[in-house]
Amino acid sequence: MSHGAAEPLMTWVDGESQSSVSILDRGLQYGDGVFETIACRRGCLRFVAQHVARLQQGCERLQIAFDAHRKLTAELERASRLAPPVAIIKVIVTRGDALARGYGSVGRESPRRIVTMWPDAPLPESLRAQGAAVRFGQLRLARNPRLAGIKHLNRLEQVLARAEWHDAGTFESLLTDSEGHLVSGTMSNVFALKGQTLVTPPVDQCGVAGVLRAVVLREAAHFRLEPSIAPVSVQRLLNADAVFLTNARIGVLPVSRLGGRTIPIDARTRALAAHVEQLDA
Amino acid sequence: MSHGAAEPLMTWVDGESQSSVSILDRGLQYGDGVFETIACRRGCLRFVAQHVARLQQGCERLQIAFDAHRKLTAELERASRLAPPVAIIKVIVTRGDALARGYGSVGRESPRRIVTMWPDAPLPESLRAQGAAVRFGQLRLARNPRLAGIKHLNRLEQVLARAEWHDAGTFESLLTDSEGHLVSGTMSNVFALKGQTLVTPPVDQCGVAGVLRAVVLREAAHFRLEPSIAPVSVQRLLNADAVFLTNARIGVLPVSRLGGRTIPIDARTRALAAHVEQLDA
Repeated sequence: MSHGAAEPLMTWVDGESQSSVSILDRGLQYGDGVFETIACRRGCLRFVAQHVARLQQGCERLQIAFDAHRKLTAELERASRLAPPVAIIKVIVTRGDALARGYGSVGRESPRRIVTMWPDAPLPESLRAQGAAVRFGQLRLARNPRLAGIKHLNRLEQVLARAEWHDAGTFESLLTDSEGHLVSGTMSNVFALKGQTLVTPPVDQCGVAGVLRAVVLREAAHFRLEPSIAPVSVQRLLNADAVFLTNARIGVLPVSRLGGRTIPIDARTRALAAHVEQLDA
Repeated sequence: MSHGAAEPLMTWVDGESQSSVSILDRGLQYGDGVFETIACRRGCLRFVAQHVARLQQGCERLQIAFDAHRKLTAELERASRLAPPVAIIKVIVTRGDALARGYGSVGRESPRRIVTMWPDAPLPESLRAQGAAVRFGQLRLARNPRLAGIKHLNRLEQVLARAEWHDAGTFESLLTDSEGHLVSGTMSNVFALKGQTLVTPPVDQCGVAGVLRAVVLREAAHFRLEPSIAPVSVQRLLNADAVFLTNARIGVLPVSRLGGRTIPIDARTRALAAHVEQLDA
């Protein structure tokens, strides 16, 4: 399933209205950069501080000397003022143009920021109400702690994993790593609720530390849930009281079908979803 | 060490002289593509058929419907006619512009080919004569058989591994995978010679199946060497009669320092290097 429109409403490169970049950009040459996908609702950038903070963490991990946060934040504000009621704003920061051939950075590159704003549609109410059908993916995520957690531009695993299914009725695919540990969906984090425990797998070997994942872990206490980052086996997932997905676009989305089996939707998932929906930071 | 000039002499996008691409290109968005680095010597494209074949294999693995081989080959020929005596031609093929948001391909993307031609300099004769100093890298390569072997655009591991050292006297860094198996250098394959056996590690979990690696494996018999693709421990490497590196730019390059230890340069390495140097297919 692709989502949203085929083309962005607006594109900026380093603050200028522009829709192309140099072929020498290391983002294109090597995937040498990071990105964020920010939901914009009625002009409000949801969890924008958290997104910008994660972008910065990613840049630091990759030793990209990005220091234009104020400019970026101003551009995001500008984009939000021009956005339709439901929109997605994607930010890419790359190391900038290659100043020489080869993988090595000369250290003087100028990081480039690319902002695109896309019209979006709310998730269908029926999907929120009835829950998502989720499959188990075949591709195993590779383990690399140096790249785990951040939202970098090396996303071929997600591209390949997303190519495994075409039926529109399946919303997401859950992926395990090369050692068989559950990690996340192709574009979302996954949580299991069992008793009072709300657990999501660690993302220190692969996967992305989602902004909504962090929000849910933070907000769990409001629902007397004990948040836990711990290994989740497929069996544990199938035996959970409830399972849900999170990302910036979907918020908290209950899962009702898992690898062909029906799983219940817990009232606490709905409460958590509604709670997160009205948060804005 | 960066190599070569800071800017390409010429750039083509889909056959047109052009130096930029859409920010929607999935090569930039996700690293969704492959590349080749082809050495051009006095107008001759070295091992061009093998490079184009590997590019095609990579596209097939990623399900990129690239069918413009004839156009690409014609462009490579054109580039070679315009090239200085020592040049590098880099080809990138991406899945093309994203036709919707998200990782999923809609299947109708138009793959894009990007050709850049760079002036290069021959490797210093002293380096060829005295051999390269090589270190052991800290970064562990992630294992993913779905991406192993092909030369895809997800190269953050190589970028990070190349950032581990800055002294110009070190030519390359040898990398192990997350299970400790030796794989390759950041930009080259590695061979160990012991007795009559010429061994290089498998690249079925990570690493790139280099064009020059295949050439050396094929040509080994001319030197009464038994080529072998097999695990190579660091200890085995240190105990080898000789160690050398291969890639399109360096050909066969002897190693004389390995993690601070001196290792001999075998006469057979020099003979193999000279032999490969005069091959053109």
